[in-house]
Amino acid sequence: MTIDAQILVALRSAQSSSVSGAELATQLQMSRAAIWARIEELRSLGYEIEASPHEGYRLIKCPDLLHADDLLARLGGLQKIGRDIRVFRETTSTNDSTERLARDGVAEGVVVFAESQTKGRGRLGRRWSSPAGKGLWFSILLRPKISPQAVTQITIASAVSLRRAIKNVTGLTPEIKWPNDLLLNGLKIAGILTELSSEPDAIKHVILGIGVDVNLTSEDFPEELRTVATSLRIVARRQFDRAALAVEILREFERDYQLLHTDRFEELANEWANACTTLGKIVTIELADRSLHGRVEALDQDGALLLRTEYGRLERILGGIVHSHPD
Amino acid sequence: MTIDAQILVALRSAQSSSVSGAELATQLQMSRAAIWARIEELRSLGYEIEASPHEGYRLIKCPDLLHADDLLARLGGLQKIGRDIRVFRETTSTNDSTERLARDGVAEGVVVFAESQTKGRGRLGRRWSSPAGKGLWFSILLRPKISPQAVTQITIASAVSLRRAIKNVTGLTPEIKWPNDLLLNGLKIAGILTELSSEPDAIKHVILGIGVDVNLTSEDFPEELRTVATSLRIVARRQFDRAALAVEILREFERDYQLLHTDRFEELANEWANACTTLGKIVTIELADRSLHGRVEALDQDGALLLRTEYGRLERILGGIVHSHPD
Repeated sequence: MTIDAQILVALRSAQSSSVSGAELATQLQMSRAAIWARIEELRSLGYEIEASPHEGYRLIKCPDLLHADDLLARLGGLQKIGRDIRVFRETTSTNDSTERLARDGVAEGVVVFAESQTKGRGRLGRRWSSPAGKGLWFSILLRPKISPQAVTQITIASAVSLRRAIKNVTGLTPEIKWPNDLLLNGLKIAGILTELSSEPDAIKHVILGIGVDVNLTSEDFPEELRTVATSLRIVARRQFDRAALAVEILREFERDYQLLHTDRFEELANEWANACTTLGKIVTIELADRSLHGRVEALDQDGALLLRTEYGRLERILGGIVHSHPD
Repeated sequence: MTIDAQILVALRSAQSSSVSGAELATQLQMSRAAIWARIEELRSLGYEIEASPHEGYRLIKCPDLLHADDLLARLGGLQKIGRDIRVFRETTSTNDSTERLARDGVAEGVVVFAESQTKGRGRLGRRWSSPAGKGLWFSILLRPKISPQAVTQITIASAVSLRRAIKNVTGLTPEIKWPNDLLLNGLKIAGILTELSSEPDAIKHVILGIGVDVNLTSEDFPEELRTVATSLRIVARRQFDRAALAVEILREFERDYQLLHTDRFEELANEWANACTTLGKIVTIELADRSLHGRVEALDQDGALLLRTEYGRLERILGGIVHSHPD
C-alpha cells in the first residue's frame, strides 16, 4: 500500500477522533514533516483533513473523486479483486485500458477506473454514455480457470454481486434484465460488458466491464437515453458516495468469484434467476441474423435463455437484444 | 497494387519471354527511367531480372524471401484473404502483430508474415520454434459472422485448406492430428493457433495463426523437437518455394472460408474427418485440470472429439493435448 493509502487507513480507522502526527510518523516510519507534506497533498486533492496542534489529524470529508490510494485503503488490501487499482481521469474505455494491461501479463484482480470514457461501450458495440465524475465506469481483469463456454458464469456472478452491492449501499433493489442489465423502475441503472480473449478451448483472460449510473441527473443523459436509462440519484433523490459503492461492488464480487471457483456456482445461478424478471415474459430477441418472438420459459444453468417461440419450438439463446412486451 | 507488385505481375505473366521497357512504361503510366529504377530496387532484393537493350526485362528467378508486393502479385488481388499483406523481418509473434491491427479496426483478410518470430507460440501457450527464412509463419485476421461457440469451424476449415495446399505444392499428403496439427510420417509438419476476441455471444475478431516447417533441416530444430517435428524439406528431400506455398494456402483458405459462410461447412467437416487419423485411436488427453484415457469414437459436427473413456462414459472434448498409444 502507498503512503497516502496508509495515512487514509489510519485516519479512517480513528473514525471521528484524531490521530497525532507523532503516532502517524511512528506507524509509517517517516518524519512528522514528511507526514505533513502528504497531508497537504491529500488536501489539495479535496480531502478535508483537520489539523490541530494538540490533537493531530482528523478526516472530515472525502472529495467526490476516485483515488486509487483511497480505494485501496477502503478495501484494506485483503482481497484479490482490487489488489491493484488504477484510476484514469479519462480513457477511451476502461475495457481497452485493462486489455492492454492483460496483454502485458498483469496478474488477475487489477481494477481500472476512469472518471470519464470518451468511447465507453456496452454490449455488441453499442455506445455507453459515461460523463465525468457522475458514475462508476470500471473494468476488472480476470484469468479464470474455466472453459470459454462457461464464461457466462462470470457475467451471472457479476450481475448478482452488483445488484447486492447497490442494495447494500442505497437500499434500492434492482431487477436483472437478461442477460446482464440492472433496472430500477424498468429503466437501466447499470450494465455489464464481458469481453474475453481465448483459444477455442482455453481462456486467456476476461475483462469484466461495469458501468453504474450513480449521480447522473436527467440532463446528464443524452436525449435518446432519457426514456430508457436512469440513475441511483434520480430514483433515490439523493447523491451517493461513488467510492463507497465501488468498494462494496469489489467486495461482493470477490466473494462471488470465489464461489464460482469452488463449484458453488449454483447458489449464484439461483440468486440470479430469482432476480431476473425476464423469466416468463413475452419478448422479441434480436439476434445477429434474425429475430425471435416468444415466451421466456426458463434459464438454464449456464445462464442461457430458453425461449418457447411463437411456433412452439424451444430455442436456447446465449445473447442478443431483448425487448419485452406487455403480457 | 503497388508499382513493384504490378511490375512483377507483368514479368510473371510473360512467363519465359521478355517485356519491353516501353510496354511496362505505358502499362504503368511511368517513365522508362522510373521503371528502370524499380527494377534495380527489385534486383537489390534478390530478384534476378535480365535486362536486354532490345528485348526488355525478363524474370529469371525470385529470391527465397517473402515480399508483400510479390505475394500480392501472385495472388492477383482478387480475393479477400490476402487483400492486404504485411511482411516483417522479425516480430514477437505474427498473432500479436495481427491482434494490434485488429484492435486498430483493420478489415478482415489482412495477412501478416514474419521471416522469424522471437516468441512464436503454439496452442495453450507452448513455444513454437520459427527460425528465419526457413518456414512460413503467418496470421490471418478474420471477422466471421458466426457465434463464438462455432469458432472451431474456422480451425477445421484452415486445417483442410492447409493440408490441400501442401498436397498441391509438394505432392505430400499430411494427416490431421486432432484438433489441428498436420503430420507427415507421424511427425508434426504444421500447426494452427486460433485465437479469438469476443463477447460471450458475439465474436469481435479471430486471429488464425499458421506455422509450416518448410525448408528446415534437422539442425534447424531445437534438440527437444527433433523426435516430434519434421519439415517438408526433410521428408521430400528437396526445398520448396515458400512464397508459392503461402499463396496456395491463402487461395485454398479463401475458398473454404467462403464455404463456411454459405452453410456448406459439412463438406469441410467430412474432408477433415477423413483426414483425421486420431479417429479410432487409443489416446490420453491432457486437459487443464485432469487427464482422460480412452478410445476416440467419433468427431461431432463442431469438431469436438467424442471419447469413450476407460470407464465407458462418452466425453465430449473441445481441446487439450492428445497422446496416441499403439492399439
